[in-house]
Amino acid sequence: MESNKKHTWKSILHEVIYEADTPSGKLFDILLLVFIILSIVLVMLESVVSIDREYHRLLYIGEWIVTILFSIEYILRIVSVKKPFKYIFSPFGIIDFLSTIPMYLSFFFVGSQALVTLRALRLLRVFRILKLARYLGASNQLKDSIVASRVKIMVFLFAVMISSVIFGTIMYLVEGEANGFDNIPKSVYWCVVTLTTVGFGDIAPQTALGQLITTFIMILGYGIIAVPTGIVSAEYVRTSQKADKENEALEQNKNAAVKLDNDNIKVHLNSQHCDYCNVSNHRDNADFCYNCGHPLHH
Amino acid sequence: MESNKKHTWKSILHEVIYEADTPSGKLFDILLLVFIILSIVLVMLESVVSIDREYHRLLYIGEWIVTILFSIEYILRIVSVKKPFKYIFSPFGIIDFLSTIPMYLSFFFVGSQALVTLRALRLLRVFRILKLARYLGASNQLKDSIVASRVKIMVFLFAVMISSVIFGTIMYLVEGEANGFDNIPKSVYWCVVTLTTVGFGDIAPQTALGQLITTFIMILGYGIIAVPTGIVSAEYVRTSQKADKENEALEQNKNAAVKLDNDNIKVHLNSQHCDYCNVSNHRDNADFCYNCGHPLHH
Amino acid sequence: MESNKKHTWKSILHEVIYEADTPSGKLFDILLLVFIILSIVLVMLESVVSIDREYHRLLYIGEWIVTILFSIEYILRIVSVKKPFKYIFSPFGIIDFLSTIPMYLSFFFVGSQALVTLRALRLLRVFRILKLARYLGASNQLKDSIVASRVKIMVFLFAVMISSVIFGTIMYLVEGEANGFDNIPKSVYWCVVTLTTVGFGDIAPQTALGQLITTFIMILGYGIIAVPTGIVSAEYVRTSQKADKENEALEQNKNAAVKLDNDNIKVHLNSQHCDYCNVSNHRDNADFCYNCGHPLHH
Amino acid sequence: MESNKKHTWKSILHEVIYEADTPSGKLFDILLLVFIILSIVLVMLESVVSIDREYHRLLYIGEWIVTILFSIEYILRIVSVKKPFKYIFSPFGIIDFLSTIPMYLSFFFVGSQALVTLRALRLLRVFRILKLARYLGASNQLKDSIVASRVKIMVFLFAVMISSVIFGTIMYLVEGEANGFDNIPKSVYWCVVTLTTVGFGDIAPQTALGQLITTFIMILGYGIIAVPTGIVSAEYVRTSQKADKENEALEQNKNAAVKLDNDNIKVHLNSQHCDYCNVSNHRDNADFCYNCGHPLHH
Repeated sequence: MESNKKHTWKSILHEVIYEADTPSGKLFDILLLVFIILSIVLVMLESVVSIDREYHRLLYIGEWIVTILFSIEYILRIVSVKKPFKYIFSPFGIIDFLSTIPMYLSFFFVGSQALVTLRALRLLRVFRILKLARYLGASNQLKDSIVASRVKIMVFLFAVMISSVIFGTIMYLVEGEANGFDNIPKSVYWCVVTLTTVGFGDIAPQTALGQLITTFIMILGYGIIAVPTGIVSAEYVRTSQKADKENEALEQNKNAAVKLDNDNIKVHLNSQHCDYCNVSNHRDNADFCYNCGHPLHH
Repeated sequence: MESNKKHTWKSILHEVIYEADTPSGKLFDILLLVFIILSIVLVMLESVVSIDREYHRLLYIGEWIVTILFSIEYILRIVSVKKPFKYIFSPFGIIDFLSTIPMYLSFFFVGSQALVTLRALRLLRVFRILKLARYLGASNQLKDSIVASRVKIMVFLFAVMISSVIFGTIMYLVEGEANGFDNIPKSVYWCVVTLTTVGFGDIAPQTALGQLITTFIMILGYGIIAVPTGIVSAEYVRTSQKADKENEALEQNKNAAVKLDNDNIKVHLNSQHCDYCNVSNHRDNADFCYNCGHPLHH
Repeated sequence: MESNKKHTWKSILHEVIYEADTPSGKLFDILLLVFIILSIVLVMLESVVSIDREYHRLLYIGEWIVTILFSIEYILRIVSVKKPFKYIFSPFGIIDFLSTIPMYLSFFFVGSQALVTLRALRLLRVFRILKLARYLGASNQLKDSIVASRVKIMVFLFAVMISSVIFGTIMYLVEGEANGFDNIPKSVYWCVVTLTTVGFGDIAPQTALGQLITTFIMILGYGIIAVPTGIVSAEYVRTSQKADKENEALEQNKNAAVKLDNDNIKVHLNSQHCDYCNVSNHRDNADFCYNCGHPLHH
Repeated sequence: MESNKKHTWKSILHEVIYEADTPSGKLFDILLLVFIILSIVLVMLESVVSIDREYHRLLYIGEWIVTILFSIEYILRIVSVKKPFKYIFSPFGIIDFLSTIPMYLSFFFVGSQALVTLRALRLLRVFRILKLARYLGASNQLKDSIVASRVKIMVFLFAVMISSVIFGTIMYLVEGEANGFDNIPKSVYWCVVTLTTVGFGDIAPQTALGQLITTFIMILGYGIIAVPTGIVSAEYVRTSQKADKENEALEQNKNAAVKLDNDNIKVHLNSQHCDYCNVSNHRDNADFCYNCGHPLHH
């Protein structure tokens, strides 16, 4: 069953597009990455008035070439997968669609006013960069430590927000509209700017009392920054030590086929996609999809 | 004794208002939370001149509705608890009172001048947000690590203050009034702005010597920021390891009824309030209030 | 020998001034602290033009009262110690002297021009705040972790300086005098402002290339900040674990007279000063000075 | 073989220039360091217009003296090593060359316009500071923890870049050219300025929506900063614990000749260079070069 599947054009396409471990799949992914970066650079350059004035034609042609290539890729992705709707309505399917459609819309809706809006839609193609995330061997250990400290980080964010609302209101009352604290929302915004130590300086306290309160806010912000860092550090130490222990246990048991590598989780999970339900991240020695039970071809 | 208590209207009210574990209590808390956020948004919008001009009537009515609802809630809280004065003079009792009274005061004290002051009092209702803290399953582990590093954080804050006073005075002498360093308190304020890496830029050194000293202050601040972070991280690692050990000990002792969960301390402490002394955070399997010995109903 | 010593006025004075554990010594220290803070507030207020204009006389009298009190204290300190020169040339002796002398100098050197300079000298009295450090139960564990990471922090500071010089030069060449990067020292100053994430904004890159390089500098600075924090955290975890182990060992050995407390090192070291050589930080159960062998009175 | 080698002038030169452990080698290194810092100060002062106008002749002569000394040093380095091309094309060889050549080029290419460009080339001599790195006993443990967290830091930098591009585009659409967000590259630059908490303030959001999005960006940046710090901390704790264990093992084995010191790696690796292949960092008790097998002289 596995052997004859490999020779249909659909399965070959599937392998090229969805796999990242075969030579042809790797090449496809690298090419795609180059075109994504190229298209982002094109959109960026187009927004620079002086460059756009001189090279408008070139940028326009370049953008159409990239759009057509992405459209072909989008269609091939739908064709080569067994359950196309699962891909279409997956997050990446939606991003792939949104990154090609604005260019076509700019073609149909011609008009002096609409053009400005459509130019904005075209800019949405920058979101194509999110595709990059797919090709990123994301460090699972990092993810684990963030997930583990999820609740604590939310408590911390909540503390930042409450502090900002209260101090924002106080600063609005103390400084007032005369010194740039026009209203409470703007004061709250200023308070977040100060607490996070960004400090743009477009709004700054002018009264002595306002500066005294600001001093307090800044020292508070300075102290608060220690909290999420401490949390992530501690959780990370914990997950590291767990991984170290697992590694030690594995090394003692020489028969174990699975090996953990702290830096690259791909050692025991591969990028292969099930060609039935399109789920990825299967274990390297898996024979069946963990999601739908469909056999996997190695 | 427990059964007939449950059927009086007072005990039902108490359960709805003070408990967070029963369905009706949960619903009440969520509704309260929605109204608190709504009232804060109303106060915020009112401070924006352009919005207030157009929707003044709507905002005014909305604020009165919220105020009346909070007043009813405040009265019910007093009525349903056995020792009302303990609630009234508890921190949350005072906040609840302060978050309703300014609106009524604005009703009695009418006058052109007084209105401005009362508007400020009305803004105090933003403090109602503090109520939210009550509904927050605060991470006790986080609190423990902050309490454990209390003394060290104070030493650190003291170091920041002494540095600010000394460098603020030096910068006042070096830069002087001509470059925005009008007086020592303002220079000290600028020094805190710089040490905490906020850097508004409304005041900035102009002389070469001033910039040299600033370079030193910034590198010092950069180094200082490592200290509280390191402290909290280390304390957090310690409390985490302690909790892990406790967890291990508990897992080995299968008969233990109490289970620790690092993320949610509610697993072994519940939100039930004693209906005699109003103390909360009882253990889940407690039959009597740990504070006054009054029996608890489950 | 110990008994008759206690009744001389010198030994009583010594106890009141240098000890912090006896009731009279504690009272003296608290009073001193209040006067130090008061004198700093006076100097600060004097620098504010509007306050100085109205309350000049009051501030002037207040400052003279504080100066005379500090002078008396300085003389008593010299008189009550057996080896006065050791005190006079100790860091605190010099600070005590420098915090009283400017006021007297302003009395002798009268003249329109000299007054401005003397006012600056008077401001040096802010350094009196350093006296506070003496009364601070400094966390030794914190100090240990900083000392242990001394070399690494210097390597890190060196990296910051080299980066600043190189990027400062590049930015001077790229942006030039037209955009505020007047010369290399100023560019290096700007680079430290950026690397430490202070970002005043008085100087900011205007060219596209300058902004690209700045982006790189900022991400570098963002990465660099992790290094000293990581170092201090790790060292702190290490010293904490060591202290924990020591604590455990002590608890197992019930006969041990010395007890360690992580937060307050005063538990096993006291603030008593040897009245011969003036060395402090003796162990609580010490009978002789660890420095000169002179007997200590309890 | 070793004895007669020591008496040739080449081997003496090699020892003076390349070794840092012998008295003459140490003196040479300290003198070199002084001259490097002196030359950097000269270049810096020359860029300050007011200083250059007055002391141009002095600075010019000083720079020529330093350049000639560095040229002599460069030639001696080539002469005293057995494989000179290995030195010439090593990173330090290239830096040494680049730090002397601009001064000579300014001599040959005379012309009113060219002088400005050559002055820029002369500034490249600031890179001579990189030489300092050679004399720095770099903490290997620090390097190890950075190398170990290499992949994770890259994932994090990637996340920062993607966030910057997406939020930069959104801010360009929301704020537009009217509020300083001229084009997407500039918006992305602003976004990095905000995410890294630098916050120059030369560009700042003016619209309510822009400020709301900025609030989100800042809190995100505040959260993101915890990640690299946590990573480095955790890796550092790990490498520290490993080093501690190694230390313990060494202390138990009293016969071990090699001793590890966490702060100073020079204890078991010395700065001696093989005079055949010029490789350094040999073990203290090594008799032969670990790279080419050539005998080392002690």
